[in-house]
Amino acid sequence: MNYDQVFDQAIERLHTEGRYRVFIDILRNKGAYPNARCFAGHNGPKPITVWCSNDYLAMGQHPKVVEAMEEALHNVGAGSGGTRNIGGNTHYHVELEHELADLHGKEGALLFTSGYVSNDTTLTTLGKLLPGCIIFSDELNHASMIAGIRNSGCEKRVWRHNDVAHLEELLAAEDPDVPKLIAFESVYSMDGDVAPIHAICDLADKYNALTYIDEVHAVGMYGPRGGGISERDEAADRIDIIEGTLGKAFGVMGGYIAADKKIIDCVRSYAPGFIFTTSLSPVLVAGVLASVKHLKSSSIEREGQQASAAFLKQAMRDAGLPVMDSTTHIVPLMVGDPVRAKKISDILLAEYGVYVQPINFPTVPRGTERLRFTPGPAHTQAMMTELVKALVEIWERLEIELAQAA
Amino acid sequence: MNYDQVFDQAIERLHTEGRYRVFIDILRNKGAYPNARCFAGHNGPKPITVWCSNDYLAMGQHPKVVEAMEEALHNVGAGSGGTRNIGGNTHYHVELEHELADLHGKEGALLFTSGYVSNDTTLTTLGKLLPGCIIFSDELNHASMIAGIRNSGCEKRVWRHNDVAHLEELLAAEDPDVPKLIAFESVYSMDGDVAPIHAICDLADKYNALTYIDEVHAVGMYGPRGGGISERDEAADRIDIIEGTLGKAFGVMGGYIAADKKIIDCVRSYAPGFIFTTSLSPVLVAGVLASVKHLKSSSIEREGQQASAAFLKQAMRDAGLPVMDSTTHIVPLMVGDPVRAKKISDILLAEYGVYVQPINFPTVPRGTERLRFTPGPAHTQAMMTELVKALVEIWERLEIELAQAA
Repeated sequence: MNYDQVFDQAIERLHTEGRYRVFIDILRNKGAYPNARCFAGHNGPKPITVWCSNDYLAMGQHPKVVEAMEEALHNVGAGSGGTRNIGGNTHYHVELEHELADLHGKEGALLFTSGYVSNDTTLTTLGKLLPGCIIFSDELNHASMIAGIRNSGCEKRVWRHNDVAHLEELLAAEDPDVPKLIAFESVYSMDGDVAPIHAICDLADKYNALTYIDEVHAVGMYGPRGGGISERDEAADRIDIIEGTLGKAFGVMGGYIAADKKIIDCVRSYAPGFIFTTSLSPVLVAGVLASVKHLKSSSIEREGQQASAAFLKQAMRDAGLPVMDSTTHIVPLMVGDPVRAKKISDILLAEYGVYVQPINFPTVPRGTERLRFTPGPAHTQAMMTELVKALVEIWERLEIELAQAA
Repeated sequence: MNYDQVFDQAIERLHTEGRYRVFIDILRNKGAYPNARCFAGHNGPKPITVWCSNDYLAMGQHPKVVEAMEEALHNVGAGSGGTRNIGGNTHYHVELEHELADLHGKEGALLFTSGYVSNDTTLTTLGKLLPGCIIFSDELNHASMIAGIRNSGCEKRVWRHNDVAHLEELLAAEDPDVPKLIAFESVYSMDGDVAPIHAICDLADKYNALTYIDEVHAVGMYGPRGGGISERDEAADRIDIIEGTLGKAFGVMGGYIAADKKIIDCVRSYAPGFIFTTSLSPVLVAGVLASVKHLKSSSIEREGQQASAAFLKQAMRDAGLPVMDSTTHIVPLMVGDPVRAKKISDILLAEYGVYVQPINFPTVPRGTERLRFTPGPAHTQAMMTELVKALVEIWERLEIELAQAA
């Protein structure tokens, strides 16, 4: 057994497929986002513009968030020092859970160290608590949900993306007395399309299934208070478990679920990924508290984001660039090849100071490699016009045929 | 199918067994640790002393750590805004990985959002990369390692705690050509005993197995630079993968592994729990950087902690309290019953302002419920003398027979 050889081959496979990942070494400039500094391959940092951040509303640099974090840092220190059960349950955690429960109109909420962990450990735990449970999963569900479903040991039925007829077919085929859980996302982050929540809840009612929605790419950004697509569509009360993140629109880090008290209490009491881990730093929690509270009452950021996304999509369409059919704030540009996607991204960074990461397998299916832009309220129209000009130049240079302008 | 009933029964089971967990709502006082405020069941916060924190060296309030976090907060903002691959790879992350690799004398290191995630996703990924791998696991390994081993889908052999003869028996029974991984901890956190690292590495050499050590309760605290028991015992170069946490002795939050470049590159490229999650907030990373650097050159904190632990163990022994046989900084007091452990803890908090959490199943085996004290450099001898007095009073009140003083 030659271990080195196995590891060498594993890395070699990535190079061969052109999807070996190189992380771009950056520092953002607080107060001047989307401006940042790039440390890769240069003498000293070089200024760039960030186009692929999930800090969608630039809340990571909002004065209220920064101030709340600074205050907590001086009040209680850096870390929580323990699990939620052993010394790591600070008053900030308790307050934030109340705030998030309120955001979604639920009885309770529960914090996790990340959105990934919240999906993984909640689905695992629910699956284990419900004897013989079958989990119905949209085929484009995030890796963390797939992990949670697999780790639950439950049987899984995968329904074609957003296809409720197919979901019904699969539900109808099972024993009515067996526990069922339907797991899906509201906004699919790599395509930018949205789930038909009410239609899925109708099926859940009809077949007596629990519903689990991942709103990580929607919380803070949709609904009058930032409660996500389920708030916008007035469907939150029809969903059993709403999962969200604190690391995207809320600008900080962490994940959570909101649900009935007894579901929260079960996950709190049985989920290994919740029980056996140091709780979120109170500094982060304080920052999120400020962010959630702010976005509950302010819609300027949401409106700015929607305006930017609409402008950029239209500008790309007008220029004949292959922008995908997104109905949300996400602006994906199809390339369809990992090597070409990386090449475009490299040129953008080196020559135009534009930072947009190529998205490749396993994040998206092979052959659908793309560039994914996330313009926010801080990206100006001038920046976007310049970006589109750069893209057209590169597309022409790489002899990519431009489609007829829409 | 009545979902409510299932959830109700799951909670009811915990009440029946006396192990339903109530989180104590606290805020620590920066600059005055181990003092804190408790919000539970009182009008307004009440002062308490924390005896069960894993912020072992009080680095969570160290001026260098707090200053570094404040600086990063104002430099780049609250969160990283993305995964390591998509916008979330800051210069702080790159620097900290260099620092941690150096700490353990390894070629590389990789950050995770928590120690739990680092164990879970690294073991899962290694297990999947090595075809037919068998994982040998100490029976007292942490829940996160058990999760990683299970999620890897590998066959598992459990060896009796710290019993190298049993480990050899299990290794010898397998095909020499099959990949093998030995996974164990250095300091077992609930008992306070230490693994025989060299003896385990001898077996790994003999049977051509990889070695994986969890040093979360040792990094920062053992070895001349805080590299853990593997540094103290001069065994770091014999271990393939060293795993640690940033949320205990380093005082902040997060986890990591250190290993050869190719192993790091494989985990970086294949581990879902690393790839698909927002990276650690740069604010946290900056704080950890300061903490690791400080503890590399300062041993005052380590010496203070060892002195406190020795003093408290001796004082408990002198008073006839059932202190367990720990050879480290951890001071566990055996109770052996979940209801009684909780009662002692409740009295300590309500009447003495002493906060120590009862440790019950599933964190420790049933029937070995205990109180676990973690005195640090900031706990004074006067505090410890008072604590022992309080414990003796409660033990007498609850008619628990005191053993003959040692």
